[in-house]
Amino acid sequence: MVDHELTGAFAPVVTPFHADWTPDAPRFVAHCEWLLSHGAGLAPFGTNSEANSLDGHERMTLLDHLVGHGLDAGRMLPGTGCCSLPETVRLTRHAVAHGCAGVLMLPPFFYKGVTDDGLYAYYARVIDQVADSRLRVYLYHIPALSGVPITMPLIERLIRDFPETVVGIKDSSGDWNYLSEMLDAFPGFGIFPASESLVSRASAKGARGCISATVNINPQVIARLCREWAADGGAALQAKADAVRGIVQSFPMIAALKAVLATQRDDPTWQRVRAPLSILTPEQHERLHAQLAACGFTLPG
Amino acid sequence: MVDHELTGAFAPVVTPFHADWTPDAPRFVAHCEWLLSHGAGLAPFGTNSEANSLDGHERMTLLDHLVGHGLDAGRMLPGTGCCSLPETVRLTRHAVAHGCAGVLMLPPFFYKGVTDDGLYAYYARVIDQVADSRLRVYLYHIPALSGVPITMPLIERLIRDFPETVVGIKDSSGDWNYLSEMLDAFPGFGIFPASESLVSRASAKGARGCISATVNINPQVIARLCREWAADGGAALQAKADAVRGIVQSFPMIAALKAVLATQRDDPTWQRVRAPLSILTPEQHERLHAQLAACGFTLPG
Repeated sequence: MVDHELTGAFAPVVTPFHADWTPDAPRFVAHCEWLLSHGAGLAPFGTNSEANSLDGHERMTLLDHLVGHGLDAGRMLPGTGCCSLPETVRLTRHAVAHGCAGVLMLPPFFYKGVTDDGLYAYYARVIDQVADSRLRVYLYHIPALSGVPITMPLIERLIRDFPETVVGIKDSSGDWNYLSEMLDAFPGFGIFPASESLVSRASAKGARGCISATVNINPQVIARLCREWAADGGAALQAKADAVRGIVQSFPMIAALKAVLATQRDDPTWQRVRAPLSILTPEQHERLHAQLAACGFTLPG
Repeated sequence: MVDHELTGAFAPVVTPFHADWTPDAPRFVAHCEWLLSHGAGLAPFGTNSEANSLDGHERMTLLDHLVGHGLDAGRMLPGTGCCSLPETVRLTRHAVAHGCAGVLMLPPFFYKGVTDDGLYAYYARVIDQVADSRLRVYLYHIPALSGVPITMPLIERLIRDFPETVVGIKDSSGDWNYLSEMLDAFPGFGIFPASESLVSRASAKGARGCISATVNINPQVIARLCREWAADGGAALQAKADAVRGIVQSFPMIAALKAVLATQRDDPTWQRVRAPLSILTPEQHERLHAQLAACGFTLPG
């Protein structure tokens, strides 16, 4: 039985590429080991992983590598939601077979203005077709990129009909009112904001931690914040996490995270992104590192 | 050598499904044969084909069926653009290997706010990796669903660097000013508006025809309009096409097209859509058919 009471800081793991833009499995595994060793969980194949720029085979192969290297699948929440229902079923079955703690499931995101009935049918059919009692689904609300919001009535219906399966949500709306409303409406639901900047406020209302891009470079501080936000020093931890977040999120996020890993690990390979994304301009690169240096940020060893 | 001077009316072919929502290849082939026999070309795996609700294997298998049944690949313009570059390359190679006249290529549509440089890199890498001189790419501008517009400077750059390969565009913006500007800027480029309602106006400025959802049910009239818009009776043909279009587009398009095929062929199978789409409500269904009957519309035999 998988643990569906996931808590803490999860990294939507950035994906390293070889010079021909194929995924670099050894660097990926090493980065995931490093994240786990600093107290973070793994949410590979999220937005910040360039997951939608990978194909299904690439995603499954990378997950095979993680599990094959003995990393703890009980701390993994891979993204499996695709536009195509059979593709979502395939990726989800694969994750469940590996014993992953859960999956993070984007809604199908090509068609816009679809109804809650249509989205409900999509999720219900995926769950039916995966047909595995170990499945734990975390919904993924990221309207700015998906264009397909996960509404409160949809969440309510899915929890009602699949109480053992639909167990949480990542909220990337950045909308405190929406997050707060969900926390009030669905006590016990596994709600994760997408930024550490909301951890103290949201955890006070029952959020479980965060699934945040910047966990890729700041895992120790954010993991500690998720545990100790209410303790003495919690406010200082929040401020420390916010300082880094505030800098990085003022740049194109994925390119910025990769630039930090490339520079601080002295490993330019890490810079590569897949089209249609672009690396930072030299000016952005310089400014990012100057700002991080000014606030004393370094990658934990 | 494929003909890259495609002209006329193309149907983004609707995809029939079995009761378990797997693609129904026999009905798909029969519908494509019917479209060809009524003068339309085939643009399978477009928006109205629910292409993004299919996986790559399903798309390739359906195309195999068309070609295997002897349908003319020289009148086919399958959609091959996916978020993932390797998936786009795979589908594109498959279409080129089948001798398709061209491919219709969505930009990668998950990330928003990407740069023209990033999109250029995406298309350039796809073309490099397909590495086949027979490849003819039609770009696909559908900002309301993709969220990723194909800008004029991007088109200009792609035409300049790949003049034999990037040969046209489908414009689903519905924005006459944009269409008109493209027609002025790129004479000789294969420009297809996404609605027959623009055929007379756009063809007068050099458009090649249209790639339109409603060709699925009204192929004869629209194909004739694409040939005879400037002839005596052209205005009447335009009005006749517009009447049907005006009705159908006031309903959810894909469900409406399938409802017409289901009802007029007495074949309820055709109604099925994949989640997240929904079939018409009974009220919509009744209203659609009443309006079509009032304007005397029937499927050609």
